[in-house]
Amino acid sequence: MPKTATCAALDEQGVTPVAGPLGGRRRFIQLAGTLSLSGVVGAPAAPTHAADPAAPGEGSFELGEFVLQSGATLREAKLAFKTHGRLNADKSNAIVYPTPYSAHHSDIEWPIGPGKALDPEKYFIIVPDMLGNGLSSSPSNTPPPYDRARFPGVTIQDNVAAQHRLVTEGFGISRIALVVGWSMGAQQTFQWAASHPDMVARIAPFCGTAKTTPHNLVFLEGIKAALTTDAAWMDGWYEKQPSRGIRAFARVYAGWGLSQPFYKQELYRQLGFSSLEDFLIGFWERRFLRRDANNLLAMLWTWQHNDLGTTPGCDGSLERALRSIQAKTLVMAAETDLYFTPQDIEYESSHVRDATFRIIPSVWGHQAGNGLNSVDSAFIDAALKNLLAS
Amino acid sequence: MPKTATCAALDEQGVTPVAGPLGGRRRFIQLAGTLSLSGVVGAPAAPTHAADPAAPGEGSFELGEFVLQSGATLREAKLAFKTHGRLNADKSNAIVYPTPYSAHHSDIEWPIGPGKALDPEKYFIIVPDMLGNGLSSSPSNTPPPYDRARFPGVTIQDNVAAQHRLVTEGFGISRIALVVGWSMGAQQTFQWAASHPDMVARIAPFCGTAKTTPHNLVFLEGIKAALTTDAAWMDGWYEKQPSRGIRAFARVYAGWGLSQPFYKQELYRQLGFSSLEDFLIGFWERRFLRRDANNLLAMLWTWQHNDLGTTPGCDGSLERALRSIQAKTLVMAAETDLYFTPQDIEYESSHVRDATFRIIPSVWGHQAGNGLNSVDSAFIDAALKNLLAS
Repeated sequence: MPKTATCAALDEQGVTPVAGPLGGRRRFIQLAGTLSLSGVVGAPAAPTHAADPAAPGEGSFELGEFVLQSGATLREAKLAFKTHGRLNADKSNAIVYPTPYSAHHSDIEWPIGPGKALDPEKYFIIVPDMLGNGLSSSPSNTPPPYDRARFPGVTIQDNVAAQHRLVTEGFGISRIALVVGWSMGAQQTFQWAASHPDMVARIAPFCGTAKTTPHNLVFLEGIKAALTTDAAWMDGWYEKQPSRGIRAFARVYAGWGLSQPFYKQELYRQLGFSSLEDFLIGFWERRFLRRDANNLLAMLWTWQHNDLGTTPGCDGSLERALRSIQAKTLVMAAETDLYFTPQDIEYESSHVRDATFRIIPSVWGHQAGNGLNSVDSAFIDAALKNLLAS
Repeated sequence: MPKTATCAALDEQGVTPVAGPLGGRRRFIQLAGTLSLSGVVGAPAAPTHAADPAAPGEGSFELGEFVLQSGATLREAKLAFKTHGRLNADKSNAIVYPTPYSAHHSDIEWPIGPGKALDPEKYFIIVPDMLGNGLSSSPSNTPPPYDRARFPGVTIQDNVAAQHRLVTEGFGISRIALVVGWSMGAQQTFQWAASHPDMVARIAPFCGTAKTTPHNLVFLEGIKAALTTDAAWMDGWYEKQPSRGIRAFARVYAGWGLSQPFYKQELYRQLGFSSLEDFLIGFWERRFLRRDANNLLAMLWTWQHNDLGTTPGCDGSLERALRSIQAKTLVMAAETDLYFTPQDIEYESSHVRDATFRIIPSVWGHQAGNGLNSVDSAFIDAALKNLLAS
């Protein structure tokens, strides 16, 4: 729906414009969620609009006419998010935790909770939804003419620019205690530290790289080819999801997302799957059938084009961009990750001034960082606590 | 064409039935090839039929009514092959070198040549074509009713049974100096040793396992899904190759076939490719576009179902089957192989009585065994020479 209509509608319902550093020139919409979060009892199912923008819950930040690196302008652009905990008086307890590939903010809550590193009783945790994920501006929810197959390429820098607007204009935060993220969340984490070195105290990118490696790009070419081979995809102009293509995409992804020993040891049984085929369908196909095909391709484009070296002032040099990071840095890699390999991640971390590199000892491959295996999750949680205590 | 017609036609052209151990009850057809092999000048382009079945060149062995493990019968079944060198008087110098996935016998000649381990001046090297590869009985060349999508599942044991017929009935060989193979060739190599322990002096399976691991099966599920998502595949009843599906299959395969550092170091430039995309198209898409889609799927079925433990008498136990191997065994794995991992291969080799396990130190991933990189090829060649000298 058009922006003015949205804003008018929300104004009528009592939405408070936020006076951020830039004077609150953008509308800020905070929608209380229905989930019980960290001891906060959720609002009723019908969305309501909190008067306090920093109250826990889901929200959407109006980016207005959002100019992308590509030169395209997303009009009525929006950044969805969810927050946990409360922003303290001096606004010093913010953590930014961006979403990874294909996830919604609700999919990655495993490290958030009382007693955990991301403790909502101590921190104000903002989980911004990646552009393209179906909640923030995406092919599936952008009005014409930039809708569906016409959705422009969005970079990691574009994502961080949008998140920066939310954090500064929306919440009036000028210093972030921690940016942390898994996988594509790690990409955004690196970018935060490189784009806003004075603003980010700590970063903890895990199972992700600051620049997409050529092999990782090839893996993505494979899943893209699997999806787009479905004639029902119709070059993105489908009226009905190309579900066979999405299922093929998922089936290819399955080989990459975990490790060889994970499958040999049948660890999917720990997740409640009754057979290998049940896991391929029940975990992998289900995971991506929830999503829109163009959205999956949009985020894939973002992933393929991720390159911290393109940060302004870095002259295209990944190493230079990494050296520019001022934040206290904890970089983690999963021992058996097949596309964000420990070798690639360690190489990058060696170029960050104040970095610690740790390997998550796990056979869960890339999924070691997804909160599925309690041992891996405990390892990550402990490492994050150490970092936050430093 | 019907079997009787084939045999009659060939009889008229002077094909000699071979008196093998079983009395020559099968027709044996030796077609001299057009290639120059190992110093042997090839015959003219028009195929001729050599009077001497053991002369170097291409050939086809008539298997007649070939009963598969599944219970299906392939009528007029044939096993294509090529031989290099000459069988000696006491028939003691035979090497069997089966083809890997999707390859023809002409694709894997890199370890064959004067001065190499597989020296045609010393050895009689038989390269049998895997069933399903388009030269031996395959979906693409089998007459109805078992043609195309109806081609039955063929196992590694079926392949070895057919090859055993060629070796014993066709050539009258009762002892093989070496069975050697890469990838799916390694699967057939293990099977030779387990099915015919008294017949095989040495084996050298490299970059392949005696039983397909679950992760390897998932990788294959991915490429299968990519291909079969193409509507042009028509469940196998296409009249025209589903080329988009084959290209998607190839693009997924590209990520698995080499290693992460291979791509990072751009080693495809050593093969004459000008960019990553040029490599994906010029190497991977080209490789599989040469093949028939149903053939690719037939060999994939064989691969997914490979299990040495199902050898009769082994009670389904992989370890028991491996322990039954009598041959002097050299097992090699490529250090960075993503689907036939060194760990999986070493595990299997630890159950073979007289086995040496070696890792090919290489960043060429699975392709380390495909003769593309001279350092890897020299490593394999030297190891094979050692084995043959023992």
